[in-house]
Amino acid sequence: MPNKHFHLSVEELLKKVQDGKLEIKDAIYKLKCLPYEDLGFAKTDGHRVLRQGFPEVIFCENKTTEHIIKIIGSLRKSGNVILATRVEPQVFLKIKKKYLNAKYNKAARAVSIQKTTIKKIGNILVVSAGTADIPVAEEAAFTAECMGGNVERLYDVGVAGIHRLLGEKEKIFKATAIIVVAGMEGALASVVGGLVSVPVIAVPTSIGYGASFKGVAALLSMLNSCSPNVSVVNIDNGFGAGFIASLINKNKL
Amino acid sequence: MPNKHFHLSVEELLKKVQDGKLEIKDAIYKLKCLPYEDLGFAKTDGHRVLRQGFPEVIFCENKTTEHIIKIIGSLRKSGNVILATRVEPQVFLKIKKKYLNAKYNKAARAVSIQKTTIKKIGNILVVSAGTADIPVAEEAAFTAECMGGNVERLYDVGVAGIHRLLGEKEKIFKATAIIVVAGMEGALASVVGGLVSVPVIAVPTSIGYGASFKGVAALLSMLNSCSPNVSVVNIDNGFGAGFIASLINKNKL
Amino acid sequence: MPNKHFHLSVEELLKKVQDGKLEIKDAIYKLKCLPYEDLGFAKTDGHRVLRQGFPEVIFCENKTTEHIIKIIGSLRKSGNVILATRVEPQVFLKIKKKYLNAKYNKAARAVSIQKTTIKKIGNILVVSAGTADIPVAEEAAFTAECMGGNVERLYDVGVAGIHRLLGEKEKIFKATAIIVVAGMEGALASVVGGLVSVPVIAVPTSIGYGASFKGVAALLSMLNSCSPNVSVVNIDNGFGAGFIASLINKNKL
Amino acid sequence: MPNKHFHLSVEELLKKVQDGKLEIKDAIYKLKCLPYEDLGFAKTDGHRVLRQGFPEVIFCENKTTEHIIKIIGSLRKSGNVILATRVEPQVFLKIKKKYLNAKYNKAARAVSIQKTTIKKIGNILVVSAGTADIPVAEEAAFTAECMGGNVERLYDVGVAGIHRLLGEKEKIFKATAIIVVAGMEGALASVVGGLVSVPVIAVPTSIGYGASFKGVAALLSMLNSCSPNVSVVNIDNGFGAGFIASLINKNKL
Amino acid sequence: MPNKHFHLSVEELLKKVQDGKLEIKDAIYKLKCLPYEDLGFAKTDGHRVLRQGFPEVIFCENKTTEHIIKIIGSLRKSGNVILATRVEPQVFLKIKKKYLNAKYNKAARAVSIQKTTIKKIGNILVVSAGTADIPVAEEAAFTAECMGGNVERLYDVGVAGIHRLLGEKEKIFKATAIIVVAGMEGALASVVGGLVSVPVIAVPTSIGYGASFKGVAALLSMLNSCSPNVSVVNIDNGFGAGFIASLINKNKL
Amino acid sequence: MPNKHFHLSVEELLKKVQDGKLEIKDAIYKLKCLPYEDLGFAKTDGHRVLRQGFPEVIFCENKTTEHIIKIIGSLRKSGNVILATRVEPQVFLKIKKKYLNAKYNKAARAVSIQKTTIKKIGNILVVSAGTADIPVAEEAAFTAECMGGNVERLYDVGVAGIHRLLGEKEKIFKATAIIVVAGMEGALASVVGGLVSVPVIAVPTSIGYGASFKGVAALLSMLNSCSPNVSVVNIDNGFGAGFIASLINKNKL
Amino acid sequence: MPNKHFHLSVEELLKKVQDGKLEIKDAIYKLKCLPYEDLGFAKTDGHRVLRQGFPEVIFCENKTTEHIIKIIGSLRKSGNVILATRVEPQVFLKIKKKYLNAKYNKAARAVSIQKTTIKKIGNILVVSAGTADIPVAEEAAFTAECMGGNVERLYDVGVAGIHRLLGEKEKIFKATAIIVVAGMEGALASVVGGLVSVPVIAVPTSIGYGASFKGVAALLSMLNSCSPNVSVVNIDNGFGAGFIASLINKNKL
Amino acid sequence: MPNKHFHLSVEELLKKVQDGKLEIKDAIYKLKCLPYEDLGFAKTDGHRVLRQGFPEVIFCENKTTEHIIKIIGSLRKSGNVILATRVEPQVFLKIKKKYLNAKYNKAARAVSIQKTTIKKIGNILVVSAGTADIPVAEEAAFTAECMGGNVERLYDVGVAGIHRLLGEKEKIFKATAIIVVAGMEGALASVVGGLVSVPVIAVPTSIGYGASFKGVAALLSMLNSCSPNVSVVNIDNGFGAGFIASLINKNKL
Repeated sequence: MPNKHFHLSVEELLKKVQDGKLEIKDAIYKLKCLPYEDLGFAKTDGHRVLRQGFPEVIFCENKTTEHIIKIIGSLRKSGNVILATRVEPQVFLKIKKKYLNAKYNKAARAVSIQKTTIKKIGNILVVSAGTADIPVAEEAAFTAECMGGNVERLYDVGVAGIHRLLGEKEKIFKATAIIVVAGMEGALASVVGGLVSVPVIAVPTSIGYGASFKGVAALLSMLNSCSPNVSVVNIDNGFGAGFIASLINKNKL
Repeated sequence: MPNKHFHLSVEELLKKVQDGKLEIKDAIYKLKCLPYEDLGFAKTDGHRVLRQGFPEVIFCENKTTEHIIKIIGSLRKSGNVILATRVEPQVFLKIKKKYLNAKYNKAARAVSIQKTTIKKIGNILVVSAGTADIPVAEEAAFTAECMGGNVERLYDVGVAGIHRLLGEKEKIFKATAIIVVAGMEGALASVVGGLVSVPVIAVPTSIGYGASFKGVAALLSMLNSCSPNVSVVNIDNGFGAGFIASLINKNKL
Repeated sequence: MPNKHFHLSVEELLKKVQDGKLEIKDAIYKLKCLPYEDLGFAKTDGHRVLRQGFPEVIFCENKTTEHIIKIIGSLRKSGNVILATRVEPQVFLKIKKKYLNAKYNKAARAVSIQKTTIKKIGNILVVSAGTADIPVAEEAAFTAECMGGNVERLYDVGVAGIHRLLGEKEKIFKATAIIVVAGMEGALASVVGGLVSVPVIAVPTSIGYGASFKGVAALLSMLNSCSPNVSVVNIDNGFGAGFIASLINKNKL
Repeated sequence: MPNKHFHLSVEELLKKVQDGKLEIKDAIYKLKCLPYEDLGFAKTDGHRVLRQGFPEVIFCENKTTEHIIKIIGSLRKSGNVILATRVEPQVFLKIKKKYLNAKYNKAARAVSIQKTTIKKIGNILVVSAGTADIPVAEEAAFTAECMGGNVERLYDVGVAGIHRLLGEKEKIFKATAIIVVAGMEGALASVVGGLVSVPVIAVPTSIGYGASFKGVAALLSMLNSCSPNVSVVNIDNGFGAGFIASLINKNKL
Repeated sequence: MPNKHFHLSVEELLKKVQDGKLEIKDAIYKLKCLPYEDLGFAKTDGHRVLRQGFPEVIFCENKTTEHIIKIIGSLRKSGNVILATRVEPQVFLKIKKKYLNAKYNKAARAVSIQKTTIKKIGNILVVSAGTADIPVAEEAAFTAECMGGNVERLYDVGVAGIHRLLGEKEKIFKATAIIVVAGMEGALASVVGGLVSVPVIAVPTSIGYGASFKGVAALLSMLNSCSPNVSVVNIDNGFGAGFIASLINKNKL
Repeated sequence: MPNKHFHLSVEELLKKVQDGKLEIKDAIYKLKCLPYEDLGFAKTDGHRVLRQGFPEVIFCENKTTEHIIKIIGSLRKSGNVILATRVEPQVFLKIKKKYLNAKYNKAARAVSIQKTTIKKIGNILVVSAGTADIPVAEEAAFTAECMGGNVERLYDVGVAGIHRLLGEKEKIFKATAIIVVAGMEGALASVVGGLVSVPVIAVPTSIGYGASFKGVAALLSMLNSCSPNVSVVNIDNGFGAGFIASLINKNKL
Repeated sequence: MPNKHFHLSVEELLKKVQDGKLEIKDAIYKLKCLPYEDLGFAKTDGHRVLRQGFPEVIFCENKTTEHIIKIIGSLRKSGNVILATRVEPQVFLKIKKKYLNAKYNKAARAVSIQKTTIKKIGNILVVSAGTADIPVAEEAAFTAECMGGNVERLYDVGVAGIHRLLGEKEKIFKATAIIVVAGMEGALASVVGGLVSVPVIAVPTSIGYGASFKGVAALLSMLNSCSPNVSVVNIDNGFGAGFIASLINKNKL
Repeated sequence: MPNKHFHLSVEELLKKVQDGKLEIKDAIYKLKCLPYEDLGFAKTDGHRVLRQGFPEVIFCENKTTEHIIKIIGSLRKSGNVILATRVEPQVFLKIKKKYLNAKYNKAARAVSIQKTTIKKIGNILVVSAGTADIPVAEEAAFTAECMGGNVERLYDVGVAGIHRLLGEKEKIFKATAIIVVAGMEGALASVVGGLVSVPVIAVPTSIGYGASFKGVAALLSMLNSCSPNVSVVNIDNGFGAGFIASLINKNKL
C-alpha cells in the first residue's frame, strides 16, 4: 500500500539510516519502489528523483494554472529542480508571482525553478535542420541544461546545404551526446549520425506541409536511418530527447 | 476515328509529303494526334516515338512471352529502339532467339533491341544509396543509355558515410541530370540535390524492412526534400527516372 | 571551416582571379563548396546562386517580418533576384516599404525583388485542373517567371471535360516544360503527359474534400502515372515545380 | 421463423395462388421477406432471385469443391442462371462433370450454368486501362452477360494515349451503362465519365507496384472523380460492377 | 480548336439544322464534342447539358460570390436548371437579388434556379442512418429533385434499431433507385441493398468521432458491402449520389 | 409496419395483459420487436429500455437544444432514466429550466434526469492513465452510475509509475468490471487486465500529440493486448464503456 | 524475488492453510501476486488460474512442438484444462501421443486437454457473417466450451440477407453473451447488438479482398458501432472473444 | 578525392606520426574525414572504427555469399571485430570455411569474427516481452557482446503477467543500459522505463497478427511512452539497439 504521507516517511526512513538502523543500500532500494502523493486530481511521483535521476516533469498542456502551481508545490518537496513544459507566457507570469526564481525559455515555452545552482558538465549538442524547428530544439536544450548539461546549439544546418553542417565539424566531434531536430524529411539525423561515435537522439517535428504529414515523413526517415547510433523519440518531443541525452551525458564523465 | 491500318496510313501520309501535297509541319501535327495498332489483347501506340520522342516501352510483368514478342514485332515497325523492362532471364532467351541483337542487363532485368547504333550525348549520373538499390538504379541507367545518353554510375554512397559521396564531387558537378535511387530513408536525394544546379530525379526503392514500409519512408522523405530541384517518381520506377533524365539530357546539348 | 565573413572572402577570391592568381575554373569550384552567412537565427546560403543557379528562396510561413527582411538583406548581396513565398499581404506591405521595387503576386502570395530586368526565354506551360488549384499554379508560374522563363497559363481544364484541354493542343505542343497542378484525383498529369515529349512536373494540391485526404489521392494518382515523363513534387509545392521547370527550360535553348 | 423446408413452402404458396386463394401481389411480397435453405455449412438465399432480380452468386475463394457443388445444387432449384466467381480451372472441371452445360471464362475465372437461353438486351460497355486489368474486366463482362446484357469490350485504352480512347467514341456514346476497370492511377474513369450521360461504374484493380498500394491509388482517384456520374465498387470487384451495370441496363429498355 | 464564341456557333449550327443543311443527328454529335466558354478565371462547360444530360453544377466552396454569379450567368445560356452546392446563406441572398426565382435548401446548403417547371418522374428514396447525416442526405435529395425526380426521405433509421428500417418496407420496395447516407459504421447500405433489386448509391459521411476517421470507416464498410448492388461515392458527396440516382431513375420509365 | 402512435399501442397492449388476454411472455416478445416514435427530424427508439435494458441515450453533439429537449420529452415516456452525453454547459442550463431534477457532470459533460432513485449495485472500477484522460473516464463513470452501478475511480496511475497502480490492488481486486481509459500508449489496459479475472473494457483517448495520432496509438496497443480479458471500444467512447461495464455488473449479482 | 520452485511453494502455502496457520483469504491474496515457473525459453504463469480464472493459454504459432509440449507439462500442474490455439494438425498428433485425452477442433485449429469433465453453464451464442469466417468463430466457440460454457452457433447470417438473421430471434434473445465474427464490412455486430440487452463481443476477421485491408474495414466498422453494447477484440482473435464471453457468462448464473 | 588505396595511406599517415611529422590529434582528425575502399559493387567504410567506434556492420539480406566474404576481407583490414547480421545458416558455413574463428548465434542469425578477445565491461540488460521476440532480442544481445559489453537476458516477461518482471528488479536496477524488445502492444518499454534511471532503447518487433500491423502497433506505443528515458529504433532492428546500448555502456565506466 502506498504511504499517503510520503514526505514524513522519507524523513523517518532517513532517520533510521542516520541512526544506523537501516543500511543506505537498503534505504535506496526501498525508496525506488513505492510512494507518491495523491493531490486528488493527480498523483505526483515525488521520489522519481531517486528512481529516475530527475523529478517528474510537468506537461502543462490541458492543465489549469491552479493545478500546475499545486503540482509544483508538491514536487518541490523532493527535488532541486522543477521543469515544466508547454507553458504559455501568461501561465508563466502567474508561476513567477509565486516562485520568484522561476525562469522562462520563450522559444521552448518551458519553465524551470531551481533551488541551488548546478555545476554544468559534459557537452550536449542540439542540431536543428531549419529555423522553424527551433522551438522543439530549444525544449530539448533547456531540458538538458536543467538536468545539468553544458549545451551547444547548431541551428539551420539542413542537408540541402550540407557545407553549413560540415563547416561545424569541431562542435560535432566534441559532443558527448547529440540531439538532431528536423521536420519535413528528417535526413539530417543520418548525416550527423554517420559523422560521430556518440548516440544521436533524433526528434521529428510537426513543422512542414503536404506530404510531411505533421512529422510522419521525418519520423519514418529517422527510424530508417542507416547510421546505427540513431534512436528516435516522438514527434515534437524535445523534452524526451533532452532527458535521454542528459542521462548519456552524465555517464560520459 | 482511328485508322486500324495505321502503318499503311503513315506511308500514304508520307507519300503526300513527298509529293508536296502536305507540308511537313502539318504532317507531324497529324501524326501526333491519333493512330495506334490493335493487336486484340493490346493497342500498341506505335507513333509515340513522334509524340513523346521515344517508342512505347514494354512493361513485361504479368504478360505472356508470346504477347511480349508480338508487341515487340508491332513496335519495331515505328522506332529504332525497343525497350522492355521487368524481363525474367528465361523470357529474354526466347526474345533473343527471334531478335539476335537483343541485349540483356541482368541487374536491371531489362532488354533492348536496337536497329542502328545511337551516338551517346550528355552526362546522366545515376547515384544509389546502398548495394541493394542497384537493380532499380540499373533499370534507370539502362533506360537512359537506350535513349541515347552517356551514363555514369555512383553506387553505395549513402549519407551515413557522407565522405563517400563528397569524394566524388567531380562526377556530380559535371552531370546534366542526376537520378538518385535510395530505399530506407531516402535522405540521399536532398544531399545530392543541394550540391548541384541540375534537376534531380529521385527514385524510392522498396528495399528495406520494418518502418521503411516497402519504400513509403523513402518516398515521403524525397517528396519533402528541402532541395528545390528534386522531383520524385514511383517506388522502384527506375525506368521512369531514366526516361525523364533522358528528356532533360537531350535539352542540354 | 566556414568563413563567417563570406562576402569579403568572395571579393578576395575574385580579386585573385582578376590578378591572374587564380584560374576561373578553380574559383568556381571553390565557390561551389562552402560559405554561408550566419544571421544568428538563420544561416543564409548566399552563394547558392553559384551552386544551384538561383539564390536561396525564402519560405515565409512561420517567420517574423523582421527576420524575413533581414534575410532579404543578406541574400541581396549575392544575387540578382530575391523570391519569397507564402507571404501574407500585410507582410508584403512592410517589405515594399524597404524595397520599393518589390512585386507581389496576390494569388500566389509570393514576392519578388529584382535588381535588373531579365530577358525571358523558353516556354513553360502551367496547367491547372480546377479554379481552386490556381493559387498553387500561380506560385509555380511566378517562380518560373522570376527565374527567367516565359510562362503561359492554361487553367480549369480538368479531365471531366477533356475537350477543354484538347482544344488547347497548340499551347501544349510548343512548351519546353509543363507543370500540371491538380487536386482531387490528379488524372490531368497523365493525360497531359501522354500528349507531349517534354518533362511534366506534377503538383498535387490539398484542395478537395472527403477521400481526397488533403492531396494524398492526387499525389498517389500522379506517382502512378502511366505517362513515363511525369515526375511529382510535394503537395501544394508550386514553388518546387516552377524551380524544376525553369532548370529544364534553361537547358532547352 | 424461417421455413427450413423452403422449396415445399414455395410450392404451397404458389398452389394457393393457382387456387385463387392468394393474390399474386401478396405472394410476391411474402416471398421477398423470409425463406432460405440451411445446408449446415451455409444458408443459401434461394429466393434472392425474387428480391434482387438475380440468384445469389457463389464466391468460390476459400470454399471446397464439394461445398461449391452442393451450393450449386441448392441454388439451381430457384433460378435460371447460376454464376460462380473466382473458380480455379481444376474446380471448373469437377463442376463440368456434374453440370455438362457449365461454361468457363478463363480470363475471368468464372463459371455459368444456364437452364434456358436468355435474350440479350441493352448495351453495356466494359473499358479497361491496361492489358493487366483484363481479368477483372472479364469478370465484369461475364457477369453482365449472364444477367442478360449485350456487352462490348474496349481494352488497353489508358489515358497516357488518350487518342486510343477518343478513337472509339461511337462505342462509348451508344452504351446504356459503362464499367471502367483501371489499376495504378485510375484516371480513366473520370475521362470516360466526362464524355457520357449514363452511369459509370468504376472498378479499381490491385494491379500495379510501388505507390499503387494494391489498388488504393486507383480507388482514391476514382472516388475523387470530377465526373458526377462515376460511382465506385471494391478493388478487383468486377462481379459487383457487372451486377450494377446490369440493373441499370435493364431499366434502360 | 475551341470556339471561344461558343453561343454564337451554336446558333449558327442550329440555323444550319433549321435550313436543312445539317442533319439533327450530326448536329448533336458535334455538340457533344467540343465547345466551352472561357470566363478568364474559369471555362464553363455550357453544352454539358447535351453530353451528360444536365448542366455543369457549381461547387461554391472556395469561390467568390462575384465569380459564382458570373458562372451562373454563363451556364443559364445553355440549360433550364442551374444547381449550386455548398452555398452559404449570405451567398444565397446575393444570388437571390439577381435571380428572383432562386431557391435555397438550407439543410443541404444548395441553390437551384429553374426557368420552367419540370414534371417529376420515378421514385428516388434517400435513406439516412442518423440525424447528423441529414445535410448530406438533403444535398442528394435536392439534386435529385432538380434533375426531375420524385424523392422520398427516410431518415434516422440506423441498423442499431433495425425495426425502424424494416417498418418502412413499402417505401423501400417501390423505389427506382436508393441513396443510403451514413457516417460512423456505414452498415446501413448493405442492409438496404440486401432488401431490394435496384441499384443503391452509398454515401459515407464525415460525421462521427474517434475511429470513424472523418468518414473512412463508413467508406470502407460500404466498399466491402456484401450486397452486390451497392456502389459508393466520395465522403459527403450527396450531390454525386443524387446525380447518379437521377440518371438511373430516368432510365426506369 | 411500425405503429406511429406507439405509446397508445403499448397502453392497449398492456391493457390486454391486464385483462388476461395476453401472456406477459408474449407481450415482452412483441415489445422487443418493433415500435418507435417519429419526431420528424428523428425516430426515438422508446422501447429500447425493454430490448436493451436501458433507454436510448442522446448524443448531443451537432444537435440543436430545441431538438434535444424534444427528444428528452419523447424518451421520458418510456424509461426511468434519461442520459445525454456531450452536453455543453449552456445547453444544460436550458434543459435544467424544463427538467428541474436534471443533473450535470461537468468533467464528463453529461446530463441525467431520473424519475426515481435507483439502488446502486456491484462495483465498477474506472481507471485512468493520466489527468488529461479524466473527461472520458468521467463519461464512463457517470454512465455506469446512471445505469445503477457503484463506481469507484482510480485516476493518474499510468504505467511509467507502476507503483501507483500496484499500490491500489485492493480496489482492483474487488471490482466486478473494470474500465481502463488511456491516451498516448494505452499500455495500462494490459497491465490491469493481467491482474484480474473480470472483463476489462479499454477506452483509448484522443489525448496526446505527435505519433499518438489522436488515439490511434492507444487503440492499436489495446487491441493487441496480451491480456485475454481486454476488449476495446471507440476512441473517447466513455459512454460505451460505461454501458458495457454496467451490463456485466448487473450479471454479477 | 520470484520463487523458482513455485509448485513446492504453493504446496507449502496450502499446507499452512491446512494447518490453520494461514487464512484462506490471505492465501488467495498472496497467490494472486507473484509466482511463475522459469522454463528457460519461457516463464509459464502457472497460477493465472487463480488470478484470472483460467490457466495461461498457449499460442502455438512460431513455437516448436517440443516447446509446446514442455509448456503443457508445466501448465498442467496448476489447472484442470489446457487450451492451445493455432495448432497445426501434425503438431496435434504429437501432443496426442503424450496426452491421450487431447481433443482437436479442426476448423479452429485448437487443442484442449481436460482432467475432469466440466458442467456446462449459461448460453453463449457465436454468430458469423459468412462461411469463410467459421475458423475464427470456431476458435471462439471452442474456447468458450473449454471454459465451461454452453455454446450455440449461428453461421452465415450476413446482413445482405437480413431475414436469415431475423429468422433466428429466439436463439439470439436467450443468449447470456454474444460473439459476432465478421470480415469484409463488419456490419453484423451492430445489427445483432441492437437486438439484445447482453454484451456483444465483436471479432473482425482478415477474410476478404481489396479494400477490406485484411480486417481493417471490419475492425473500424465494429469500433464505430451505434449499438452501445458492442466491444471489439483484435482481428482474428476468436480466442479472446471466447474468453471474455466466458467471463460474462459465468457472472450470469 | 577519395584515396582508393586507402589502407596504404593509413600506413603512410601512421608512419608520419611515428616519424614525428604529424601530431596524433591531427592524424585522428584526418582519419575521421574521408577514406573508404571501393570494391566495385560496394564501398566499404573501413575507417568507421575510428569515426564511430566500431567497424561497419554487414547487413547480409539480399547480398550474395561471395560479396559478403569479400566485404569481410576488406573490413578485417581495419578492425578487430567483424559483425554480420541476417546471415542464413548455409551462408555461415561458407564463411566458417574461410574464417575458422567465425562464431554463429543461431537465434540471432548473426556472425562475429574476432581477432583478439575483448574484455567485457558494464551491464547491458536485454528484456523481451514474449518468446517470439527472442530472435530480435538475441540480435541485440549478440551485437552488444561483440562490442564489448556484459549482457544479461530477461525474456518472456510481458506486462500481462507483471509479477514476472517485478520479480527481477535486481537485474533491472543494476543495468547501465536496457534494451526492451516487444511485439504486439509494446507496453513493456514504458513499464521498464519507469523503473530505472538509465536510457532504455525500445525495439518493436514484427511478431503478431491482425491489428499489430507487423510491428506498427508496438512502434507507436513505444514512441508514445510516458517514460521520458525511452527512445526507439526501427521495427526488428535488434542490431541498432545493441549498438546504441553499447555506446552508452562504454560511457558508463
